[in-house]
Amino acid sequence: MKKTIGIIGGMGPLATADLFRKIVLLADVSSDQGHPRVLIDSNTEIPDRTAAILSGGENPIPALATSARTLERAGADVLMMPCNTAHYFYDGVKAATSLPILHMLQLTAEEIDRRGIKTVGLLATDGTINTGIYEKLFEEHGVKVIKPDAEHQKLVMGVIYDGVKAGNMDFDTVPFRALLDSMLEAGVESFVLGCTELPIAFQDYKLPYPVVDPTRVLAEAALKFAGVRVKE
Amino acid sequence: MKKTIGIIGGMGPLATADLFRKIVLLADVSSDQGHPRVLIDSNTEIPDRTAAILSGGENPIPALATSARTLERAGADVLMMPCNTAHYFYDGVKAATSLPILHMLQLTAEEIDRRGIKTVGLLATDGTINTGIYEKLFEEHGVKVIKPDAEHQKLVMGVIYDGVKAGNMDFDTVPFRALLDSMLEAGVESFVLGCTELPIAFQDYKLPYPVVDPTRVLAEAALKFAGVRVKE
Repeated sequence: MKKTIGIIGGMGPLATADLFRKIVLLADVSSDQGHPRVLIDSNTEIPDRTAAILSGGENPIPALATSARTLERAGADVLMMPCNTAHYFYDGVKAATSLPILHMLQLTAEEIDRRGIKTVGLLATDGTINTGIYEKLFEEHGVKVIKPDAEHQKLVMGVIYDGVKAGNMDFDTVPFRALLDSMLEAGVESFVLGCTELPIAFQDYKLPYPVVDPTRVLAEAALKFAGVRVKE
Repeated sequence: MKKTIGIIGGMGPLATADLFRKIVLLADVSSDQGHPRVLIDSNTEIPDRTAAILSGGENPIPALATSARTLERAGADVLMMPCNTAHYFYDGVKAATSLPILHMLQLTAEEIDRRGIKTVGLLATDGTINTGIYEKLFEEHGVKVIKPDAEHQKLVMGVIYDGVKAGNMDFDTVPFRALLDSMLEAGVESFVLGCTELPIAFQDYKLPYPVVDPTRVLAEAALKFAGVRVKE
């Protein structure tokens, strides 16, 4: 019997759709019935995570907990959050449910180990960067982290908020590409797309850089948990 | 207050992901919180609809009703089924819930009226074709329907089952294109993509034909119901 996957989504909705699509496309099956059941709450009422961490914005835990319980009642066997910044609130969400919650960032650190990458470029929101959550994890795994400086970090936030979250397909990525090139020169082997909007940006804006995509890592872990083979 | 959208999905899962993505991309908003809440049950335990109609396969109504009730309990204000064939069972699902269910096929017939199209080419599963459900609707709207003959209908089923549902990106579409060309010659103005796998096929296999996409029509209707502006 396959397990049912539950997704606490809406952070943002396009990132949720991206995870769902990856779960479907990575399943090594040949009919509808071979796929796992997936329950999604794309809960766009969850307050902005970065604002909560950096500027005293509304605490997102109550809304995250509501989604967790909604999915548990609906029949989910495991939960996940396709939002890196939301993992700052991981323990608070965990306390609201008896289900296991896949930890996207931890899974990503393990994937970097598996690939033998020693130096990563961290691309994430100000909120995720400020918590130091990825850096702490990578440090434990002996992985060196290169981040954009404060000035260039604005370019990362621009791609996320004015590009993907605003649905702007014509966003000018020239300055962002220059940043990525300079990070490669500084020794980055692969970029960690530490915000779930970034895999969408890299695909839609056709940015040709080596990456570790936590959304994909999470999709593979979800399929394994559900008992469905992952495509090679 | 925006209304919450509920999607009875999994028929197939990629078509469900396609509807969800269209709902997100067609919303005229600029932040996560501007989007409507979307609840999805990608219930891949729903028995094959075509098999139920044509060859005495298991009745899908109980599983469809379970999903409808799950979404209602989780807080949905309106339901929809991104599967044309499932609309054969529309009344049975309607009886299981107190929520309104958007009727994708009816909405599609209204869209064809709006565009002033007089002759459509109907591309759908054997199940949908056999029920005559689209033809009856289009007849009421004075729209002429051209269908593939029995031999060529196999090409449509091939694209749906061996192409999209099997996740085969290298599917050979040459015979299918020849069919579409011959239908255009016979007077078709636009093709009704009467199976939710077909918009995916037309996009992924880059098929350059004039189409009416019921998934897109449904996404727009869902946003309007939710009280969110649709992008021009």
